[in-house]
Amino acid sequence: MRMVDLIAKKRDGHALSKTEIDWMITAYVDKQIPDYQMSAFLMAVYFQGMADDEMANFAGAMLNSGEVLDLSAIPGIKIDKHSTGGVGDKISLILAPVMAAMGVNIPMISGRGLGFTGGTLDKLEAIPGFNVNLTTEQFIKQVTEHHEAIISASSEVAPADRRLYALRDVTGTVESIPLIAGSIMSKKISSGINALVLDVKVGNGAFMKTQEDAEKLAHALVTIGKAHGVQTRAILSDMNQPLGLTIGNALEVAETVALLNGRGPQDVRELTVTLAAHMAVMAGKTDSLEVGAQLAGDVLRDGRAKRAFRQMVADQGGDVNVIDSPQLLPKAQYRISAVAPRGGFVQAIDSEALGKAAMQLGAGRAQADDKLDVAVGLVLHKKVGTPVSAGDVLATVHSNTADPAAVVAAVVDAFTIGAEEPAKLQLIKEIIE
Amino acid sequence: MRMVDLIAKKRDGHALSKTEIDWMITAYVDKQIPDYQMSAFLMAVYFQGMADDEMANFAGAMLNSGEVLDLSAIPGIKIDKHSTGGVGDKISLILAPVMAAMGVNIPMISGRGLGFTGGTLDKLEAIPGFNVNLTTEQFIKQVTEHHEAIISASSEVAPADRRLYALRDVTGTVESIPLIAGSIMSKKISSGINALVLDVKVGNGAFMKTQEDAEKLAHALVTIGKAHGVQTRAILSDMNQPLGLTIGNALEVAETVALLNGRGPQDVRELTVTLAAHMAVMAGKTDSLEVGAQLAGDVLRDGRAKRAFRQMVADQGGDVNVIDSPQLLPKAQYRISAVAPRGGFVQAIDSEALGKAAMQLGAGRAQADDKLDVAVGLVLHKKVGTPVSAGDVLATVHSNTADPAAVVAAVVDAFTIGAEEPAKLQLIKEIIE
Repeated sequence: MRMVDLIAKKRDGHALSKTEIDWMITAYVDKQIPDYQMSAFLMAVYFQGMADDEMANFAGAMLNSGEVLDLSAIPGIKIDKHSTGGVGDKISLILAPVMAAMGVNIPMISGRGLGFTGGTLDKLEAIPGFNVNLTTEQFIKQVTEHHEAIISASSEVAPADRRLYALRDVTGTVESIPLIAGSIMSKKISSGINALVLDVKVGNGAFMKTQEDAEKLAHALVTIGKAHGVQTRAILSDMNQPLGLTIGNALEVAETVALLNGRGPQDVRELTVTLAAHMAVMAGKTDSLEVGAQLAGDVLRDGRAKRAFRQMVADQGGDVNVIDSPQLLPKAQYRISAVAPRGGFVQAIDSEALGKAAMQLGAGRAQADDKLDVAVGLVLHKKVGTPVSAGDVLATVHSNTADPAAVVAAVVDAFTIGAEEPAKLQLIKEIIE
Repeated sequence: MRMVDLIAKKRDGHALSKTEIDWMITAYVDKQIPDYQMSAFLMAVYFQGMADDEMANFAGAMLNSGEVLDLSAIPGIKIDKHSTGGVGDKISLILAPVMAAMGVNIPMISGRGLGFTGGTLDKLEAIPGFNVNLTTEQFIKQVTEHHEAIISASSEVAPADRRLYALRDVTGTVESIPLIAGSIMSKKISSGINALVLDVKVGNGAFMKTQEDAEKLAHALVTIGKAHGVQTRAILSDMNQPLGLTIGNALEVAETVALLNGRGPQDVRELTVTLAAHMAVMAGKTDSLEVGAQLAGDVLRDGRAKRAFRQMVADQGGDVNVIDSPQLLPKAQYRISAVAPRGGFVQAIDSEALGKAAMQLGAGRAQADDKLDVAVGLVLHKKVGTPVSAGDVLATVHSNTADPAAVVAAVVDAFTIGAEEPAKLQLIKEIIE
């Protein structure tokens, strides 16, 4: 087989066979195929896409390039949730203890933030001592005993994906749905789960800006999951404003604790409960989404979810005192108000701009090796549809530099204020399975 | 400037500016841009094409990456002819002396054959002693004194093109009209000519199989030439059967000599005279194509073209005896007849298949570093439209292996014989300027 022929085949719009894809990925990992051929192939995929079974084989080949976890020692269904990335998305921190409290196994393998999006591991590490690097044995033991653990992927997982991702990043081939889907699913499936719920974000703070693109991605993800024997369901959720009121690692942990205390913003609760209901059904806890939602509401209200969170923090070496006293979390030195320049309704919030503003404060990374400041970030006081008067505080900037004028200006600019009351945003848009 | 941004710009269908293209080509030659980014860019060009001025700037940047010959020491207009590659195409060998005999300067920089196409330099080297590697001084002196020289490009010409071509060859990005046109024109313009006639081949023995593609390529070539101040004209000519009756280096030299003796196949004569007429007009010898064609016919008939050829062979160290006695040219050991399996008309000839058959005998190269056997090749006895009887010899295979059965079978297969007389092929299809 010659790579140049496979490139031409894809370039001309044909689907590669499983044999061809397996050969290509193996030879690439073995450095028999140079990066310059692979990047031409990736650009051809950008233009020509992939057929459903081709995507599944592509993800499978990347999956098989590395270690696949064997979680069979954990009894029952093992289910995970993956978000395609948004702003203020702390759902995993709340959802994992909710499911654990319901007795569902959540062996969660999470990632770090890059660009305008945050990452679950970064948020958890705002809790002093929290260790996301467990051994496989520790991971299995913790999930078996307490139903949940959130860890970082091993460097042995899907090395083909890691190399391909780095190549895509510098060759203009990131934004390709089959490549995005293959990358996500090769890593998720390698964690040894039986079931997966995908939170596919759509809107101005997501990678998919349109519902059409989000639907295509959701379809691709579900197709790949099912082809590999993983029960998979995707929920399209709105990302036209940040989730909840906080953006930034310690600030989001504090909001998580509020939710686990039965308080906190309604949108975070709604999305958590919706995802939990689907996971309860997929894990066989109930046949009914309504009952599943009820069970989730119960564990949030009666403190069982909070106890499960405390257990996980303790299991992974974190300081549990921050759960009772969130004021113990790392705090920024300065708080600056971003103020409404005029009155009216908040008609829109540019979530990507807020994500980037938080990144500039140090809450996120421009480059993968940037160091984070877990204390900094934004707290929103107004969301889409809220009436404001000139001079009202739209958001508080938590900063470790005294005068982050450019960031404050960017935060103000991210809010569109006008006379007309906007249409209500619908948080849960569509279920694809 | 970042290459990843230029890749994305092209991927999204935008034209790069001159500044961007110049930066990109310079950085690539300086190895500041890795091959894996360039190949992704090339694939994006494959899909998105290039605007006219973008193509011209691209060719210009490659041209400026290397040496540009200064032919200003040669008085008058300097004109060259370039063919996009065909089977049995020995036109340059006849055209150069025809023009020289008319007093037109032909500083011709030619190439070698690859795959199913032959190359002018390989054909000339079938003449014992012929030297295609002149210094620039020798080249200028010979053209000044005798109006013609045919040499190999210096390795200093358009190094960007040489690297890009090697990359395109292994990344499925050869077949892109702006890239083909940029590659051809960067080399041609670097030879310091004022005018250029392009013989754009179309048909089953050419790279462009359809008239539409050939027209696009011709348009691109003419656009680039004019943008760089080179008077450029393209002639679309038929390549649905080999040109003349010979394929193979020494065999084509013998056919050249026949033409220069006023004999030889009509199609080779017609195309030579047509190209010569356009070159005579472009060089200012006449205003009329008719007069130009007459002048060309005259020098072929009265022996002046033959004398000019003899002068060039002598100037470049070749054995002039082969001109008077072509039987002195290298000869193959075996001659095998490829015989018509049935009677009827020759309805079509797969010229690419004949080019590959000749290549398999050793007349051409599968890889750029393959060694040639200049003696071997094919002599056709029947062309499209000719009636044949079962058992007639279609072609003679000149081989240095005793029983080239597969080649003979391929030659027979290349002829389509059927009951209906086919439509006459039109040799000169279109002039684009």
